[in-house]
Amino acid sequence: MIHAEISIYPIGTDSTSISIYIARAIEAISDFKEIRYQLTPMGTVLESDKIEKIFEASKIIIDTVHRMGVKRVEVILKIDSRTDKDQTIESKVSAVTKYLESKGP
Amino acid sequence: MIHAEISIYPIGTDSTSISIYIARAIEAISDFKEIRYQLTPMGTVLESDKIEKIFEASKIIIDTVHRMGVKRVEVILKIDSRTDKDQTIESKVSAVTKYLESKGP
Amino acid sequence: MIHAEISIYPIGTDSTSISIYIARAIEAISDFKEIRYQLTPMGTVLESDKIEKIFEASKIIIDTVHRMGVKRVEVILKIDSRTDKDQTIESKVSAVTKYLESKGP
Amino acid sequence: MIHAEISIYPIGTDSTSISIYIARAIEAISDFKEIRYQLTPMGTVLESDKIEKIFEASKIIIDTVHRMGVKRVEVILKIDSRTDKDQTIESKVSAVTKYLESKGP
Repeated sequence: MIHAEISIYPIGTDSTSISIYIARAIEAISDFKEIRYQLTPMGTVLESDKIEKIFEASKIIIDTVHRMGVKRVEVILKIDSRTDKDQTIESKVSAVTKYLESKGP
Repeated sequence: MIHAEISIYPIGTDSTSISIYIARAIEAISDFKEIRYQLTPMGTVLESDKIEKIFEASKIIIDTVHRMGVKRVEVILKIDSRTDKDQTIESKVSAVTKYLESKGP
Repeated sequence: MIHAEISIYPIGTDSTSISIYIARAIEAISDFKEIRYQLTPMGTVLESDKIEKIFEASKIIIDTVHRMGVKRVEVILKIDSRTDKDQTIESKVSAVTKYLESKGP
Repeated sequence: MIHAEISIYPIGTDSTSISIYIARAIEAISDFKEIRYQLTPMGTVLESDKIEKIFEASKIIIDTVHRMGVKRVEVILKIDSRTDKDQTIESKVSAVTKYLESKGP
């Protein structure tokens, strides 16, 4: 499994709100069965078994924002590419909380 | 409110696992009453009313990783600085899901 | 033209130095005629006419690092996707310095 | 020495150009003797001997963009915090080109 997080920043729009762009972008990849996603406050986490699918989903997201009339979009794509362990969106978080919970009194 | 997301990548450690560093870093800021945080699969979201506190928490996180014996740490800090609207970690996500939910049949 | 910047952080290596990984990754894309690149202190800037080629080069870079024995690599890919103006690596910088120079005495 | 790279993305402006914001932000930190900077196509590299100064410069940059009338600005700050070696903006690049040059025929 490969994990990524994509954030999109449309430039030159009238509004300071970007929620509608994120919503339409997510809808555009929601039929893409080989990608799981999770919305977070600062980006959208993507999970797939191949990096090519992460890039394909990222292209769909960027194209969607341009098709909504945005002429420039800045994108930050964080990728966690790991060959030694099979993680999921859930196990990545629980790997940390496990250590937090172990602290107790 | 100002929001940020911090990701830390320790360089030159023996292990491919970074969970323990994230856990200790989060514990180091957990007493910091002026910072709320939320763990996500690709980073830790921070919320505060002032950017100075975000930077102060980031410094504590970086110092914690160095004190654990890591000589080099790469850090990605995404900041969303907004003066026109008061958002929270929760309202940022619901602003997007609102549009997603409105699509229904 | 589309511009990007890629930074790679190998995790679990013995050394704090990452220069050799960046060098081998750049060599791996240096024959790729449809990509121009520029090394900067915090990342490698990529220029191409299509986003697919940016993603293709990014995959080559990540695969190269894994083939060097690194089991986990964190990647930050910044993309500037613009449909209204044809810029180059050079014109992006000069667009800013133009304003700086105009300040003079 | 600590190195960072800051990129700023103003949201809700009329124009797709962001050069003027970058120029004014750089001017705002240009008197700050304890920070060296270098403009690159995808961000501005910062060098200082203390992380506090990197954060102070970042705050000045963000405040400058807001004072120009921008109500929301997204910021990406990459930090390379290293305690084992004293590098400069120049030596970070030459550490990579050294390996590239050594490849010759």
